[in-house]
Amino acid sequence: MDRVHDTRTADGAPAREVVWAPGGHRTVYAEAWLRAHLPGAPAAPGDGRTEDDTYLWDAAGIAGRFPEAGWGAYTAEPTVTAAALDSVMGLGFVLLRGVPVRDRQVLDVARTFGFVRETNYGELFEVRVEADPDNLAFTGARTTPHTDNPYRDPVPTLQLLPCLANAAQGGDSGLVDGFHAAALLRAGDPEAYEVLTRVPVPFAFSDGRTELRAHRRLIDTDPAGRIREIRFNNRSIGTLQQPAGVLDAFHAAYRRFGELLLRSELQLEFRLSPGDCPVFANTRLLHARTAFAESGDRHLQGAYADIDGLASTLAVLRRKEMPTGSTSGSAPR
Amino acid sequence: MDRVHDTRTADGAPAREVVWAPGGHRTVYAEAWLRAHLPGAPAAPGDGRTEDDTYLWDAAGIAGRFPEAGWGAYTAEPTVTAAALDSVMGLGFVLLRGVPVRDRQVLDVARTFGFVRETNYGELFEVRVEADPDNLAFTGARTTPHTDNPYRDPVPTLQLLPCLANAAQGGDSGLVDGFHAAALLRAGDPEAYEVLTRVPVPFAFSDGRTELRAHRRLIDTDPAGRIREIRFNNRSIGTLQQPAGVLDAFHAAYRRFGELLLRSELQLEFRLSPGDCPVFANTRLLHARTAFAESGDRHLQGAYADIDGLASTLAVLRRKEMPTGSTSGSAPR
Repeated sequence: MDRVHDTRTADGAPAREVVWAPGGHRTVYAEAWLRAHLPGAPAAPGDGRTEDDTYLWDAAGIAGRFPEAGWGAYTAEPTVTAAALDSVMGLGFVLLRGVPVRDRQVLDVARTFGFVRETNYGELFEVRVEADPDNLAFTGARTTPHTDNPYRDPVPTLQLLPCLANAAQGGDSGLVDGFHAAALLRAGDPEAYEVLTRVPVPFAFSDGRTELRAHRRLIDTDPAGRIREIRFNNRSIGTLQQPAGVLDAFHAAYRRFGELLLRSELQLEFRLSPGDCPVFANTRLLHARTAFAESGDRHLQGAYADIDGLASTLAVLRRKEMPTGSTSGSAPR
Repeated sequence: MDRVHDTRTADGAPAREVVWAPGGHRTVYAEAWLRAHLPGAPAAPGDGRTEDDTYLWDAAGIAGRFPEAGWGAYTAEPTVTAAALDSVMGLGFVLLRGVPVRDRQVLDVARTFGFVRETNYGELFEVRVEADPDNLAFTGARTTPHTDNPYRDPVPTLQLLPCLANAAQGGDSGLVDGFHAAALLRAGDPEAYEVLTRVPVPFAFSDGRTELRAHRRLIDTDPAGRIREIRFNNRSIGTLQQPAGVLDAFHAAYRRFGELLLRSELQLEFRLSPGDCPVFANTRLLHARTAFAESGDRHLQGAYADIDGLASTLAVLRRKEMPTGSTSGSAPR
């Protein structure tokens, strides 16, 4: 810069004007803004995506604060919408209730906060028993806690899974906070945690018209070491090619993490009724279901979306809740 | 495991059968498969996404191998389709020529290899001069090399930018291989490179109905330290809040990388004509354009998509090219 001198902002607040070299471009910085951005000032808030920005939970911790919202209020009242979306950011999920039970409604739910991520499965996918299944989802078998599509990069960061029918015996739902499980692993077995944050895992899926693969870590951290993404799916993990020592350490750590994820005290269990639509963070929460009798009618219709769009919708709603000066940098239109 | 003994596969090849404990589940492994997956065997190929899986280029290096394909052959001949998609994986881009010049055609181009990523800009976005621009793209100003939407996480990994009209004076296109630039930085200034692979950068975008932010590094590496993703956009970078020493190191490194990206020998320059559609990796290549006279008619129509779907389409095409035993794990349908 070339010169700095005292001035005032358009609002009359004390400010400093910088004249930049070369070119003489001028910028006015309010003193208050400069103080808030001093080097070494308290760390800025994150982007809402790491363990530090969230509330980690187990089954007991979520009791009494189970996040849910009725469809009517959710779609009509911005404060209810904001609270529901805030639960997805903070807890990793919300359960919408009373959602119209109809074909393709899941796409309308996604459009209330963001954009559908179309994949090789289509805009949406059916979860029900099929005569000739090529996926465990299409049988009545139990699925253990997992995230979806770790063989995709970018992986979908949100999943919606509304229930259209659930008359089968069994087929209850489970959610596990993967950030909390990873934090427990870090506290109890730091070496195992370190291995899972370091070793890339080959995930793969293929069928007649698709062949996807991605090499990513089970526990992804940001540069400060904060947990940011979880991938875990024993049906799409491939064969690791690593030196024997790394393989031994990885498999021991993988087993340890898998055992943690199966602990009953970590698993939130509930039963979906028609009109229930869980919306959950697919890079944080793992989902599961108990086995069910294939003779009963059970039908979910799922879709993927992304959490950055949801966070944007929430931020804009909060602007309206706090109309004066609570956001910065937003254009006038 | 419980027991291992010699056997043969269904094809008669030598194999080992493992009987697992508990439960007695049996698995047959062909000896050839076991040899190929021995611990310490040569490193497996990656997932096609890091610098090791690609050909790094500068303007001279791309001369004589400029990747392009005519729309007719691209849509009719699988070998031409495969070669074009392979260029996107290996070089970071391909230029499709003779694409029908019509509204929304960009969506049909995306559907030849994958799925459109809808964003707050819509399924597609217009790049032309607007009367009341809220984005530099909508003026005739020069844009320096940048990646799009680093304020999004997940960021779109592919961009399509077909030209519908280009009668303006100026407005030429430029592409820079960000992986190559990052590798040059690593060779010439390892400390600067290290800073950019370590310090998270707050990117942000907001308008009247959108407020996106993501804290990600300019140069993202995999656990083995290989360059995997580049983010660089001087119009959406926010204010870093870090200790003074980190800020000084970051800004020096940022400037160094920015100067590298502006070097003419790194920039591939070309001019789009109506019917030209560049498809490029938005987490690897940076794109730019020279200034143009706003009185001339210039109109591009862009869309985002993801490279994992493109890689899948390419892998399936290659199955057909090599029908016998070249892929593993694909279901019969």
